[in-house]
Amino acid sequence: MLTRDDLAKRDQTDPLRSFRDRFDLPAGMVYLDGNSLGALPKATAARLADVVAREWGQDLITSWNKNGWYELPLVLGDKLGRLIGAAPGQVAISDSTSVNLFKVLASAIALRPGRKTIISDSGNFPTDLYMAQGLTSFLGGIDLKVVGETEVAEALNENVAAVFLTEVNYRSGRKHDMAALTQKIHAVGAIAIWDLAHSAGAFPVHLDAAGADFAVGCGYKYLNGGPGAPAFLYIAKRHQDQAMPILSGWMGHANPFAFDLDYRPANGMRRALAGTPAILSMRALEVGIDLMLEADLSALASKSAALTDIFMKLVEQECPGTFGNVTPSDSTRRGSQVCLTHHHGHAIVQALIARGVIPDFRSPDILRFGFAPLYVGFVDLWDAVQHLKAIMSGGEWRETRFAAKAAVT
Amino acid sequence: MLTRDDLAKRDQTDPLRSFRDRFDLPAGMVYLDGNSLGALPKATAARLADVVAREWGQDLITSWNKNGWYELPLVLGDKLGRLIGAAPGQVAISDSTSVNLFKVLASAIALRPGRKTIISDSGNFPTDLYMAQGLTSFLGGIDLKVVGETEVAEALNENVAAVFLTEVNYRSGRKHDMAALTQKIHAVGAIAIWDLAHSAGAFPVHLDAAGADFAVGCGYKYLNGGPGAPAFLYIAKRHQDQAMPILSGWMGHANPFAFDLDYRPANGMRRALAGTPAILSMRALEVGIDLMLEADLSALASKSAALTDIFMKLVEQECPGTFGNVTPSDSTRRGSQVCLTHHHGHAIVQALIARGVIPDFRSPDILRFGFAPLYVGFVDLWDAVQHLKAIMSGGEWRETRFAAKAAVT
Repeated sequence: MLTRDDLAKRDQTDPLRSFRDRFDLPAGMVYLDGNSLGALPKATAARLADVVAREWGQDLITSWNKNGWYELPLVLGDKLGRLIGAAPGQVAISDSTSVNLFKVLASAIALRPGRKTIISDSGNFPTDLYMAQGLTSFLGGIDLKVVGETEVAEALNENVAAVFLTEVNYRSGRKHDMAALTQKIHAVGAIAIWDLAHSAGAFPVHLDAAGADFAVGCGYKYLNGGPGAPAFLYIAKRHQDQAMPILSGWMGHANPFAFDLDYRPANGMRRALAGTPAILSMRALEVGIDLMLEADLSALASKSAALTDIFMKLVEQECPGTFGNVTPSDSTRRGSQVCLTHHHGHAIVQALIARGVIPDFRSPDILRFGFAPLYVGFVDLWDAVQHLKAIMSGGEWRETRFAAKAAVT
Repeated sequence: MLTRDDLAKRDQTDPLRSFRDRFDLPAGMVYLDGNSLGALPKATAARLADVVAREWGQDLITSWNKNGWYELPLVLGDKLGRLIGAAPGQVAISDSTSVNLFKVLASAIALRPGRKTIISDSGNFPTDLYMAQGLTSFLGGIDLKVVGETEVAEALNENVAAVFLTEVNYRSGRKHDMAALTQKIHAVGAIAIWDLAHSAGAFPVHLDAAGADFAVGCGYKYLNGGPGAPAFLYIAKRHQDQAMPILSGWMGHANPFAFDLDYRPANGMRRALAGTPAILSMRALEVGIDLMLEADLSALASKSAALTDIFMKLVEQECPGTFGNVTPSDSTRRGSQVCLTHHHGHAIVQALIARGVIPDFRSPDILRFGFAPLYVGFVDLWDAVQHLKAIMSGGEWRETRFAAKAAVT
């Protein structure tokens, strides 16, 4: 039997413990939705105020050089690279995850002329599938095949141009074996594209070591970059000269300020940029990434495994037999989240929110609890589960105020 | 002969005079580069601080509903619509101008199946041409034809799917006749796409009245939205149901939170959205747009015409015969900028910047002066030209400190 004291002791020896104080979280809240929107780092407000008043207000247009705006997407990309196992020169911060997925998918298709299929799985986040549908509908001649999560390997053949997968399933928390799948994808000569939306900042990723070809991901979840933070993309060095950008905007031009009429791609990752980058949002993301870089990545991985593990144990201990659980029990096969199921999941989530415990709901019946290792503590797990227990045992979730609320999260 | 006193009197009767105090401009600076990066509204800092601390930090994920983040791209789009002559439901704030141009160009091509040419002119901002090159290279079978600025009408024929033009030439300030050209484009059954980067916020635009089909534009110039502010796009009501998005991301889905595996476009402008919007940057843009909406648009137009007119007169009065001028003398045929030419333009611009007068340089020989009607006063014109006169008559621009500087603006 785990007790609150056991968990309090665990917090005391947590090597990441001091990071909690680096975030501004509402008093009394247990925030388990960092996989939807990461919490606010305390340093962000002052940094953004300075960017607004000094970089924009005073230095104005000279900031493109003087304050490094022009290089920021690549400088920040290299910083992020350290969190996802990418050597310098392979990551850019740019656009949204959706738009970046479009870019890398188009590049991958162009790198495998004559191949007529692209593959994803039904556990991918829908926007990735939607972007692929838009691309293939427009282009014609390329089929998108969406297979079950365990059927990717058997769907591979030499007609496959590219496979694009999200490493961690946003609903179940299931984590693909990136290295093993990439190897199988390469065995048929296809391109491997990884979406790290639920990976980057939650645990260490090893893109270079896995041999990934392309990757994309999101800045506003575990990287704590703020709502709609700019996203990122990774292009393995070996592909950079061959990958002609489909979104060939001026920020990716070899010499944007020559204002040539013809596009000529910059060398390296710069060609992955399209339009003028959203500097204010990018500066906020920088604070989140800088903070994450102070953490020991292996401590991040162990804490993520421990938080999810203990949460599952606590739910079974305090609410035995009440919930289904679609999250893998092997910590190396799951992300930093736990997904319980219950027929009345939506109302239960609303009741939790009313008590200051914030998970989110994913259709049709999933209660999704995200554990951001930097700011979620072990006692939070206890408190969250006690609230859950109270809601279930007292039937609180049946109250009409919880039944009707629409979910937009 | 114009005198400083004449201009001071003009400032006193300027109906937009009070707006100057709504901006934070560096003391002593004459800022004539608002067509590259608009100045900082005083209200932005406090608004962003509140968005960070309260909307993100305290309300967290509930802000998507509670603080209107989910609707913001369309609500703000409708506000902007009032500045560009677009009835509600036709403008969305989203992505960058480059990416939005890609979206509308792809839609236009799809709306005119069988037509094999798209046309632009050599006065278009290069990123628009680059994006078209990326799209057509990838797609195949569509030719991009770039003609001279006065040759658009004669290049039209029934093989043309779409014509995309920037209303105001970023280098010369020349302004196309949007209504007349749109009519000619429609006469051959082609689609008219307008880039309003140097129009929106500089003078009133009349998209609906001109019969424009699509438009895009930028938030960080005359709209004072901050560096890399989100851009906008306009889709005329009559095309919205037919225009299948090529960048079909989840934010444009009819029901994004159902997480269907298949894309189904939302009705109306929502389908123009792709990924998760950059909320922080968008909130800053909102401040700029709200401020602009307080201004009388016809006063904006007359002041823009007067500023550019008087600046040209002053340059001839104080520096006769020194500069070429590629800006149209007819105020209805130019934007809110004046473009002088000089073989040593780059060094002269550097010397002006050293004196606190900020224009910018455009290759090969253009000194570009932008006049944002909300915060540029008439006396500023006098002061800027006096500095120019001093630099030219004393040969100050020949100093080596000005000759070598690289231009990244």
